[in-house]
Amino acid sequence: MRITKLVGERIKEVPADAQVKSQILLIRAGFIKQVSNGIYTLLPPAQRVSKKIQEIIREEMDALDGQEVLFPVVMPKEMWEKSGRYYSIGEEMVRFKDRAGRDMLLGMTHEEAAVSTCQNIIKSYDQLPFMVYQIQTKFRDEARPRAGLIRVKEFTMKDAYSFHTTDEDLEEYYNKVFDGYNKIFKRVGMKNFISVKSDTGMMGGKYAHEFMLLTDIGEDSIVICDHCGYKANMEVATAKDDKITFADAPLKEVFTGKAKSIEEVCEFLKIKKEQTIKAVCYCIVGDNVHTVIAFVRGDKDVNEAKLKRILGKDIAVKDLDGSGLVKGNIGLVGLDNEEFITIFDSSLEGATGMVTGANKEDYHITGVNISRDTKADKFYDFSKVSEGQKCSICGHELSIKRGIEIGNIFQLGTKYTKSMGMTVAMPDGSQINPIMGCYGIGVGRCLASVAEELADEKGLVWPKAIAPWLIYLCPLRNDDAVVNEKAEELYSSLSKKYEVLYDDRKVSAGVKLTDSELMGIPVRIVISPRSLAQNQVEVSIRQTGEKIMLEIDNLEKELEKVISNLE
Amino acid sequence: MRITKLVGERIKEVPADAQVKSQILLIRAGFIKQVSNGIYTLLPPAQRVSKKIQEIIREEMDALDGQEVLFPVVMPKEMWEKSGRYYSIGEEMVRFKDRAGRDMLLGMTHEEAAVSTCQNIIKSYDQLPFMVYQIQTKFRDEARPRAGLIRVKEFTMKDAYSFHTTDEDLEEYYNKVFDGYNKIFKRVGMKNFISVKSDTGMMGGKYAHEFMLLTDIGEDSIVICDHCGYKANMEVATAKDDKITFADAPLKEVFTGKAKSIEEVCEFLKIKKEQTIKAVCYCIVGDNVHTVIAFVRGDKDVNEAKLKRILGKDIAVKDLDGSGLVKGNIGLVGLDNEEFITIFDSSLEGATGMVTGANKEDYHITGVNISRDTKADKFYDFSKVSEGQKCSICGHELSIKRGIEIGNIFQLGTKYTKSMGMTVAMPDGSQINPIMGCYGIGVGRCLASVAEELADEKGLVWPKAIAPWLIYLCPLRNDDAVVNEKAEELYSSLSKKYEVLYDDRKVSAGVKLTDSELMGIPVRIVISPRSLAQNQVEVSIRQTGEKIMLEIDNLEKELEKVISNLE
Repeated sequence: MRITKLVGERIKEVPADAQVKSQILLIRAGFIKQVSNGIYTLLPPAQRVSKKIQEIIREEMDALDGQEVLFPVVMPKEMWEKSGRYYSIGEEMVRFKDRAGRDMLLGMTHEEAAVSTCQNIIKSYDQLPFMVYQIQTKFRDEARPRAGLIRVKEFTMKDAYSFHTTDEDLEEYYNKVFDGYNKIFKRVGMKNFISVKSDTGMMGGKYAHEFMLLTDIGEDSIVICDHCGYKANMEVATAKDDKITFADAPLKEVFTGKAKSIEEVCEFLKIKKEQTIKAVCYCIVGDNVHTVIAFVRGDKDVNEAKLKRILGKDIAVKDLDGSGLVKGNIGLVGLDNEEFITIFDSSLEGATGMVTGANKEDYHITGVNISRDTKADKFYDFSKVSEGQKCSICGHELSIKRGIEIGNIFQLGTKYTKSMGMTVAMPDGSQINPIMGCYGIGVGRCLASVAEELADEKGLVWPKAIAPWLIYLCPLRNDDAVVNEKAEELYSSLSKKYEVLYDDRKVSAGVKLTDSELMGIPVRIVISPRSLAQNQVEVSIRQTGEKIMLEIDNLEKELEKVISNLE
Repeated sequence: MRITKLVGERIKEVPADAQVKSQILLIRAGFIKQVSNGIYTLLPPAQRVSKKIQEIIREEMDALDGQEVLFPVVMPKEMWEKSGRYYSIGEEMVRFKDRAGRDMLLGMTHEEAAVSTCQNIIKSYDQLPFMVYQIQTKFRDEARPRAGLIRVKEFTMKDAYSFHTTDEDLEEYYNKVFDGYNKIFKRVGMKNFISVKSDTGMMGGKYAHEFMLLTDIGEDSIVICDHCGYKANMEVATAKDDKITFADAPLKEVFTGKAKSIEEVCEFLKIKKEQTIKAVCYCIVGDNVHTVIAFVRGDKDVNEAKLKRILGKDIAVKDLDGSGLVKGNIGLVGLDNEEFITIFDSSLEGATGMVTGANKEDYHITGVNISRDTKADKFYDFSKVSEGQKCSICGHELSIKRGIEIGNIFQLGTKYTKSMGMTVAMPDGSQINPIMGCYGIGVGRCLASVAEELADEKGLVWPKAIAPWLIYLCPLRNDDAVVNEKAEELYSSLSKKYEVLYDDRKVSAGVKLTDSELMGIPVRIVISPRSLAQNQVEVSIRQTGEKIMLEIDNLEKELEKVISNLE
């Protein structure tokens, strides 16, 4: 490819609204162009990377006996009514009416399509297990697209669906996919990634893992025990109890004035956060009557994902205006109202000598004894694990890291096959609902994650396996006829064997060298009048910065060695 | 691939609503499954074919220096307002509001995206010409999806866009793409296809070709001169004048009673259709005032595509209720009303002694002399060419054939670059709007067209280049341990070299042989106790029906010969 014709311009300016390194560099290097909020065009360099990632994914899916299919992007409402998700998924799913007035939607995941496709085709136990997958465009109307290709509305995704007759069979296959995912992320060149237990979210099912690239720009928090290897997404992470006791005392209403937040109350009463009780209020989606009041120890935060699972309902933070609750003074004593659903975190079990709101302006209550002063008979774990808490498995200290979710795998159970009525006949003639697993990888996010992890201060750095071109052929001073001729000659011969991006522009050496680094092409070959005088070219390796001079007469052979050593 | 695990069931029944051979066979052979009207899932066999077609297209596009990109499926209204097509395209384009209330649409073609992507990236004449292409999902809300994958709402399409500084440069590139398209259709195995001049339709531009597979189930009519090679879509086809003269006579109102249609009037007056004048009325889309009355000789039909181009406006058949026009008696004499726009086909130029409606119930007028009795001073060619008319180039007789449009190429001119404001700097410093070409191929329609052309009464017939598998390995009596063992052995060894579909089912020989023919796999290898007794297998070629016995010990070598001779 001659760079003069390449659709994709290198720019110096950092895009105004860009938030993270991969986004800035993919735009600056001419890999992507924004079309609308969260919607991008992949320019030729990015599409080249994307296709290579897709090919790696395809190979690993085929190695797992996956069968590639293509489900539609646009699906009818009826299919999603059966699973119940037409109504349970919110505004992130695009719905529209077709010209005949039928309700249609844009697929953001394809469990319904997979079941609907396979039912009536797969009828007998001996056809299982099998897995179908596709690599297809998905659209999710994200409320907050961010970070370039990391969180977008439209993206290319590999999604796979497996079907099994027993839990054991799913478990076995799930573990194979788990290994396959590790291979994929290694092959595309990611280094610092881990797998963690995760929430099943809108997918349902009982068991899930996420693959996370560890990076400070990640949106997810991951709880890690370096000692025993425990790893979990914050949404499902647990830790050892860290109960603290305070001297029991009688209830007493105390003036706290304008002190409302935990910090202000602690400051006012000269106590530690651990001695306070935090109240967080939620409304239940689709229920205008009840308010959920979640009580948690003052030094902890509510983990909404856990709370949702405990309640089995979707919740949202409650607007307290007109609720009868006094903001900043909500307490667990005397909160009797049928509209209130109170729920207690396990950090409060058996606590004594605590401080809570008095449910009236300017006052809190001290000396709270949970078992004496509340009717709470059950405690739930819905607080967020915090740095330094102890591992519930080995007791060692937990740490919290940030990560980008680069893939996920779910044990779905029979949620979809049951609701959609897919059955297969067993050897004894009985009919069962097959047990499903599903497995996703976003191709664009994968591309951006590699970029995010490997890029340096000079620009992108592509690993060999997914680089858009392997060689950046860079004649300096191509107003020099000899240089130009040699460059054309090398372009022609090297292109027979390698993917070569040929910088045939008549611009300064500085621009060329900077662009080659910005674009992150693994190997750069510089031809200059000086090097030619010695019948040599300068070869440099983007990943290491290493530079060597190679004899032109022996270039192909030497280059082969250099390239075979590349990561 | 073991057929027991294959997602894709062979069925005997002809689907109730299936219209054409390819549709029936693709469903019966387990290649596709309908999800909704005009929306299909590609099951693994079809997806395998589709990927091979895509690879062939990609290779030919790359050979034309095409750069693959990925434009979004979902685009914002603003982009399409600039080109004017947000309003000029009707209900076939899906529009919806995103969660923030912004107007979005589903791309049915990507000229706007191509221009929007390339503008500001491509700035100078020396970056041209270039071509970008994508292979991506498109959604068109077709009013009448039909014939399986031939006319669908959702489909995978290769669309390409080239940019040029001069008409000559576009012309030259257009011709290269023309050749590339011929290569693609040959390589995927199509035989009886032609290229014809065509209407530019909603694309705009001045010049276009369609590639047509000739088949009776085609929706398009193609006018062909076997003598000089003239070929054109009916929408743009022309023929030699075939004027007929009748004796001039004075105007005379004659009673015709209930005779309304051309046929009825001819019958009543005992004249030929050629002596009558047909009036067809249209309203102009977006204009509630005017009625277009198109006059054409009675033996001819109005070609609406031509008429639209002449008027430069979109038209629809007019409902005559309340229009002041007398249905069946509309005539060109005394039709003075500012609301009426009259337009005359060239078949009427200089005609004399004609019959037209009298613009009142029960009467027609005879003796019409066009130049004497109308103010018509200009005549246009807007009638449909009919079988047997003479070629306007060589004068030989024209024939009309049916075809499926398998690809199209357009010279777009500056319609999009001008309206969207894309410019490039020329050597003299001036700014011009680049001249564009665009080039489309529907992948699924291509797949179905090959199926349609090659299938026989037994089922599908795939050419080697795009067959889902090359070999159908078919042990008969695999309850026989020896057969089974040999089959497994062959499956394992052949799979190293070829794509093999292994019929490992325990079903009757009849079912297996019938299924192998239905699925259309090029080479079938049958192993039976009888053939094994002679240390042989039976190899049959799907395309020719030819059967040969090959020694097992020499199978791989012999097979190679057989396969290299395959089409």
